[in-house]
Amino acid sequence: MSTPAFPHPGDGYQAWLGYRRIPSADLREQYLPYNRIMIEEHAERDVIIQAAIAELTRGLERMLGQAPAVLSSREQSPCVALGIFGSSAVIDGAFQEGTSSRVREEGYVIRTDNLTGCIVIGAVSSVGILYGVFHLLRLLSTGAAVDGLDILENPVNPLRMVNQWDNIDGSIERGYAGKSIFYADNKITSDLERIRDYARLLASSGINAISINNVNVHKYETMLITPEYLPDVARVADIFRAYGIKLFLSVNYASPLEIGGLTTADPLEPAVRDWWRNAASDVYAAIPDFGGFLVKADSENRPGPFTYGRNHAEGANMLAEALEPYGGIVIWRCFVYNCKQDWRDRKTDRARAAYDHFMPLDGQFKENVILQVKNGPIDFQVREPVSPLIGAMPATNQVIEFQITQEYTGQQRHVCYLVPQWKEVLDFDTHIKGEGSTVKRIVDGSLHGNRYSGFAAVSNIGNDANWTGHLLAQANLYGYGRLAWNPELSSEQIAEEWIRMSFGREADLVDAILRLLMDSWGIYEAYTAPLGVGFMVSPNHHYGPDVEGYEYSMWGTYHFADWQGVGVDRTQATGTGYTTQYTGANFDIYESLDTCPDNLLLFFHHVPYTHVLHSGKTVIQHIYDAHFEGAERAAELTDRWAKLADRMDEGLYQQVAARLAEQAEHAKEWRDRINTYFYRRCGIADEQGREIY
Amino acid sequence: MSTPAFPHPGDGYQAWLGYRRIPSADLREQYLPYNRIMIEEHAERDVIIQAAIAELTRGLERMLGQAPAVLSSREQSPCVALGIFGSSAVIDGAFQEGTSSRVREEGYVIRTDNLTGCIVIGAVSSVGILYGVFHLLRLLSTGAAVDGLDILENPVNPLRMVNQWDNIDGSIERGYAGKSIFYADNKITSDLERIRDYARLLASSGINAISINNVNVHKYETMLITPEYLPDVARVADIFRAYGIKLFLSVNYASPLEIGGLTTADPLEPAVRDWWRNAASDVYAAIPDFGGFLVKADSENRPGPFTYGRNHAEGANMLAEALEPYGGIVIWRCFVYNCKQDWRDRKTDRARAAYDHFMPLDGQFKENVILQVKNGPIDFQVREPVSPLIGAMPATNQVIEFQITQEYTGQQRHVCYLVPQWKEVLDFDTHIKGEGSTVKRIVDGSLHGNRYSGFAAVSNIGNDANWTGHLLAQANLYGYGRLAWNPELSSEQIAEEWIRMSFGREADLVDAILRLLMDSWGIYEAYTAPLGVGFMVSPNHHYGPDVEGYEYSMWGTYHFADWQGVGVDRTQATGTGYTTQYTGANFDIYESLDTCPDNLLLFFHHVPYTHVLHSGKTVIQHIYDAHFEGAERAAELTDRWAKLADRMDEGLYQQVAARLAEQAEHAKEWRDRINTYFYRRCGIADEQGREIY
Repeated sequence: MSTPAFPHPGDGYQAWLGYRRIPSADLREQYLPYNRIMIEEHAERDVIIQAAIAELTRGLERMLGQAPAVLSSREQSPCVALGIFGSSAVIDGAFQEGTSSRVREEGYVIRTDNLTGCIVIGAVSSVGILYGVFHLLRLLSTGAAVDGLDILENPVNPLRMVNQWDNIDGSIERGYAGKSIFYADNKITSDLERIRDYARLLASSGINAISINNVNVHKYETMLITPEYLPDVARVADIFRAYGIKLFLSVNYASPLEIGGLTTADPLEPAVRDWWRNAASDVYAAIPDFGGFLVKADSENRPGPFTYGRNHAEGANMLAEALEPYGGIVIWRCFVYNCKQDWRDRKTDRARAAYDHFMPLDGQFKENVILQVKNGPIDFQVREPVSPLIGAMPATNQVIEFQITQEYTGQQRHVCYLVPQWKEVLDFDTHIKGEGSTVKRIVDGSLHGNRYSGFAAVSNIGNDANWTGHLLAQANLYGYGRLAWNPELSSEQIAEEWIRMSFGREADLVDAILRLLMDSWGIYEAYTAPLGVGFMVSPNHHYGPDVEGYEYSMWGTYHFADWQGVGVDRTQATGTGYTTQYTGANFDIYESLDTCPDNLLLFFHHVPYTHVLHSGKTVIQHIYDAHFEGAERAAELTDRWAKLADRMDEGLYQQVAARLAEQAEHAKEWRDRINTYFYRRCGIADEQGREIY
Repeated sequence: MSTPAFPHPGDGYQAWLGYRRIPSADLREQYLPYNRIMIEEHAERDVIIQAAIAELTRGLERMLGQAPAVLSSREQSPCVALGIFGSSAVIDGAFQEGTSSRVREEGYVIRTDNLTGCIVIGAVSSVGILYGVFHLLRLLSTGAAVDGLDILENPVNPLRMVNQWDNIDGSIERGYAGKSIFYADNKITSDLERIRDYARLLASSGINAISINNVNVHKYETMLITPEYLPDVARVADIFRAYGIKLFLSVNYASPLEIGGLTTADPLEPAVRDWWRNAASDVYAAIPDFGGFLVKADSENRPGPFTYGRNHAEGANMLAEALEPYGGIVIWRCFVYNCKQDWRDRKTDRARAAYDHFMPLDGQFKENVILQVKNGPIDFQVREPVSPLIGAMPATNQVIEFQITQEYTGQQRHVCYLVPQWKEVLDFDTHIKGEGSTVKRIVDGSLHGNRYSGFAAVSNIGNDANWTGHLLAQANLYGYGRLAWNPELSSEQIAEEWIRMSFGREADLVDAILRLLMDSWGIYEAYTAPLGVGFMVSPNHHYGPDVEGYEYSMWGTYHFADWQGVGVDRTQATGTGYTTQYTGANFDIYESLDTCPDNLLLFFHHVPYTHVLHSGKTVIQHIYDAHFEGAERAAELTDRWAKLADRMDEGLYQQVAARLAEQAEHAKEWRDRINTYFYRRCGIADEQGREIY
């Protein structure tokens, strides 16, 4: 599907910004006085303010049925007043002394000022006003009372980024929602309106940075940083700028060789450094507020500093120097491991790789380099421990990388609400600086006092009418942004916001969808790879079960199932020693069979099928039970959804129903293949005598 | 690699028609008197005679170092005299009364006539002369004495066909030697010289028919039978015609729908019948001696008569009627099975499918329909039983289908001389009309007295300089043609001819390569899927080991390995009943564990790993031993070849050495993955304590 010329309510295109008309007359009456927007005239020249006013206008008009007037600051009446502290009497007058000093760069305050009868949104920058507007619209569209607002919000994480893995031919690596909205036929698209709508969605959830091309940078994409492509890139940057979103590009480390005419890309070679300085100069001439470069180097056959005997710090710092004069940053991915491993080799452990590669380099990276570390040590599995590299380099900037696109979690054919998974990661206590050293305090920069920090994640959108293929996967995009803004939000709270904005406000409807979302990760985990072992998927495309699909491959992802047992021994005592990368109590917990959590057991230990879990079940019986129950619960989702048939737009209902039906069928395939595999391995019958093949 | 502008001796382009200069002066002297070609003037207008003279001229000139003269029939001197019986006194005079009546359409006689001092080649048709010339050239280039020749040859099989699985985009389905020599960029190639050289190779080995497009007929290929493409097809047909090779096209059964503007392809619908009659008329207007249509219908998602509730006889007969006025034939493939099988279903047996589908239709096909039956019931595995459908339909024409391209036998990266495999199939006694009902007597038409019969096979060539990727795979192309001409030839004899023509005549060199070829199938079988079980390959591309790659798929190819045993129970007593498709003694042999041959054991029976083979080994120990030995023998091939380093052109040596080195490495991967898989399944240690992972 391409961009729909006329989006209709049932296609999901409006996502959570549909601003449906408020059904309750009472509520409309309560909101109606605020259907006026007041803004200082001089502020209207700011593109971000313009975007804020346009969004507020759109939202109020749709929800209330009439277009709001935009007033100048001289008039006084109930209204929504927007302004920057120190430049508007209305704004300054609405807040107590000291409030403005608590608002940081992207923050805002919202207050119902009973004196003026206005809802006042104040900020120290135009982007703060934009975020305040989106906050107010969220309140209105979720049906909140607005007569006593008194809100102060600052984003917890400075960097809140999405990574597009889009290729210039229009394909998307690990994309499950159609083709790219950015590219087609080796050109940047001319359909900029769809990009603007994407920017609205991102900004409304709090995102402030985007890289617009795949980290695997191919031939033509390598040239995005050259004058041939920069004018088109700049047009895309213009759009995102109006929504407070900085644009980044993924770059090819071998650019000086591939397009620069040099014979090397050695980061210590002066000609190479010059080449990158010139490239940065070209980029900033076209895009003065360009964010910087995202780099996947020396990983999965990508070029990098290793080729020249240089380490990752030398490699990254060279780029950082080129960007430094312009305030640009280098985001350097830590997804580096041996992807040509011999499956016979049980000593090499891919889980160890990021820590082993990067830990020794702590303190060697320049201030404008950020390391981007995947949430787990392997690759976005449905269940992994937290990467021990996170927080382990106190003198180095880090961002955590999540995957919104559901590569290993059902590819947007299965519903899998990922916010609870991310929450578990963020709440994990690393013990790196003693108790309370949670991941969220590392990635928000507070634990180590880093200059840069925050969230990055691989986006899940494409040009499907509903953006995400599975309508319910929109909740992951929305939830990622909200969590990046404030990791203290609960999974339920985020889901509920999204549901109210997307489907409606009736309590039973909201509750039904909320429960479905909250159940979804557990269901998906139940019928797929068991007990944290991961990677029992079909090679390459990673969809569907294939228990031995990666068992004899070069990718370092094995489970070692034999007739006696299964799992990877990563202990210090008898295994790969990966557990030693954890600090204090975490090492102890994972090292010992007695304390290792059931859901990560096979990630850390190789155990007999008859090993008894903390749950009291044997491993084999757990596998059988989880898979029968998981598939059954997946089937129940279709029934649960069917009960909502008349409670929403038919189109929304049907598209989800179709995906859930497919999921239910596919869950049976997972159930039977996993159970059959293990039954044929060990010959231990299911205690309940259910059918295994 | 594309067609080399200047083939050189080391690239393998000349294959077995290199006609290297005869090294022995004695032999040159013996041959030199025959360096004159005599032919009746009137015959020279025939394109086949022209091809024969051109080939003989080329061969004599290269081998003897001087170009032969071409004489008219009036001159009398030592020479090679060519002619058709009844039109040349020299020819008629050289043979005894009655000889000519024993020569059939494509046959020939060769005799050294001591009266005239000529080697005389007589035939009843120009193509007979062409075959005779190739025979004589083979004798000369293999160093045979020619002073007492007295040879009468008729091909044993009427149809000797190759199928190209070439697509018009230049790709080749299951092609392992580069791109198509027939097509590029959705057009028929303009490089007709390479096609002519292919025609020479085919004719020299005895091939008389070719289908030039993939049996999976895609969008553009569907239009090959239309006036848009027919002029180009006709140019290709012109080339093959000069070498006695009829051209066929694979057709899309849904053509009337897809390109004909009809709303159905129902074979009983008059408009559909008309459409095909018109199509046939167009084809024969362009190519008067067009061979006919090759059809893959209702197989692997191809369209066919099933869509309209018609059976295969109704489907094929409709096409046969369209071709009948022109003498054309329909070749209808019997590779029909359920390719959407549920792996949980142990009742459906893909091995049964061809027989179950086609047996009931015996006698219902028109006389100009031929059923093309794969040699085994599954799909060209390294080891399969003979398809029970072969010979089981006495009232129906059949050809056997082999696969020269090494889809499952090493993809021309591993050496696997397939003639011994084909010989085993051809010598198999079906018992269908009592003892002696061998496959070769079925496919030559003699057992049932069929009008049409013979061989078909999927070609192994592409535009690699050496045609077949692996130089030694040329022996399979050559050997296939020779075996189709005469299935009584031994594997060794065919290999020896090919070696002498390709590498040289020194006895030790010939012997070394001969032993290598003769060992190759056994070696490949040893380190791949064991005991006839088949299909332990990577899905889709079918290269390399993946024991469970097809175990849970929809393709019907399972081995059912569990902790106790492995194999498919196809017995009547307890299994799928596939064994009942065999006649008499064969049923008994396969049905019983006591008599089933070891090398097919797992094809017919599910047995414990501890089952003792006729060899005295257990199944599991056989698996270990075969895989260790197979990989070891593969490694030895590289040493055996290395001894030949100075015995041939460096280019020929090196290209084979490189492939053998790759094979040796890959054989270890096969060894370790198969052994590890089974060891992890059953936990039974190798008796010899070798390393299993």
